[in-house]
Amino acid sequence: MKLARFQRPGSRDSVYGICQGETVSVIVASPFEGLIVGSSETYPLDKVNLLAPCEPTKIVAVGLNYVDHARELGMPLPDEPLIFLKPPSAVIGTEDHIIIPEMSNQVEYEAELAVVIGRKASGISESEAYKYILGFTCINDVTARDLQKRDIQFTRSKSFDTFCPLGPYIETELDPSSLKICSYLNGQLRQDSSTDNLIHKVPELVSFISRIMTLEPGDIIATGTPFGVGRIVAGDEVVVEIEGIGRLVNPVR
Amino acid sequence: MKLARFQRPGSRDSVYGICQGETVSVIVASPFEGLIVGSSETYPLDKVNLLAPCEPTKIVAVGLNYVDHARELGMPLPDEPLIFLKPPSAVIGTEDHIIIPEMSNQVEYEAELAVVIGRKASGISESEAYKYILGFTCINDVTARDLQKRDIQFTRSKSFDTFCPLGPYIETELDPSSLKICSYLNGQLRQDSSTDNLIHKVPELVSFISRIMTLEPGDIIATGTPFGVGRIVAGDEVVVEIEGIGRLVNPVR
Repeated sequence: MKLARFQRPGSRDSVYGICQGETVSVIVASPFEGLIVGSSETYPLDKVNLLAPCEPTKIVAVGLNYVDHARELGMPLPDEPLIFLKPPSAVIGTEDHIIIPEMSNQVEYEAELAVVIGRKASGISESEAYKYILGFTCINDVTARDLQKRDIQFTRSKSFDTFCPLGPYIETELDPSSLKICSYLNGQLRQDSSTDNLIHKVPELVSFISRIMTLEPGDIIATGTPFGVGRIVAGDEVVVEIEGIGRLVNPVR
Repeated sequence: MKLARFQRPGSRDSVYGICQGETVSVIVASPFEGLIVGSSETYPLDKVNLLAPCEPTKIVAVGLNYVDHARELGMPLPDEPLIFLKPPSAVIGTEDHIIIPEMSNQVEYEAELAVVIGRKASGISESEAYKYILGFTCINDVTARDLQKRDIQFTRSKSFDTFCPLGPYIETELDPSSLKICSYLNGQLRQDSSTDNLIHKVPELVSFISRIMTLEPGDIIATGTPFGVGRIVAGDEVVVEIEGIGRLVNPVR
């Protein structure tokens, strides 16, 4: 099923819903509390304000997890998953603006598959990983490439407000092992790969990260970006599209 | 004033309080909501369970911010503050155990002054910084030094559960510019410096970080550690002590 988080027309409160065709029905509890049941309160999808589909306490991202992307950055492949964190303050939803910060002259998009954690996970084995996953969504791991190179540490370059577009939906019934993943800049195809090119696969990432830090419901694992990253400037529109999930669309200013 | 977060005797709920001498009085609201007023509900400090004194949405830490520590690690001094993130899942309070993870053979303590943000801060100038600070506490930026060297990225080495002891109190009336900062391992003095040795001072750090990411009430800035870091193993007890704040005590297992 496709889960959304949204504001009803004229409301500022956020609710979760199940998307069916062109409508969304409000669900009676949070999708992180167990059984997901739709209500009779239904809206046309184009009348609600879609928000980022969850509220992570942390976003754990994986660097250099596609061979061809590591090559384009000229960085050696790590033996183990290379992790870094993006702050919750960077999260925006689909249709929200990515804002180019004054500190950087080279901001780039990075299309990635995001794992949404469904329940508290600590010290999980690879074979158990799927029990702890609610579903999958799209993430744009926006990066100030000039600052990433200057700092060596990835944190500053990945942490600016608006640098974590997430959405549009959480798809709960999806095998993540071989999904087409693309990005488009102003309508032109820029990244075009498949998640079967991931070096460290989803179950390995959940297991590895859960042996470092306890993952909470709604936490995100960003699984890395394929070849084809590039610069965005004010006025651009960038789209991350993953097969079976949908299109995460963000204008830039 | 000295603020604590704690559990009353026999209760699992957390409340904030004002410490006076050997007692603590429950305050009527969160210290992040404005006026801080104590109530008549008072407990002896030694009868309550002290928790980490706030619940950060993010912990922004500054690397290599004392000249003598950068030298002991053999790392060059950065021109600008070098930031990284620690996850909220790593936070523990005073007297809680630091747990040595299986992945590391070299876990080290790092005594640091922590800034506690009092209200939402974005794009703040240095001269305004103190308006956004609630107070100061002690932090132990526990680090798996072997993994830090192997990964280059600091994240994994700094993000294990229990790797962020915080507390014991938030001191709201304190000039942070020249405070004695020490750590003790099993009672022996190991770090002995002053915050006047900070390369990038508190107002600069608040301003710099707030121009990258919006800081939320309760968020933490860890200002860096001085010379004298060293290994901890199961059975040790490590103490971070900062003049005017108190002692953050953590056994290791």
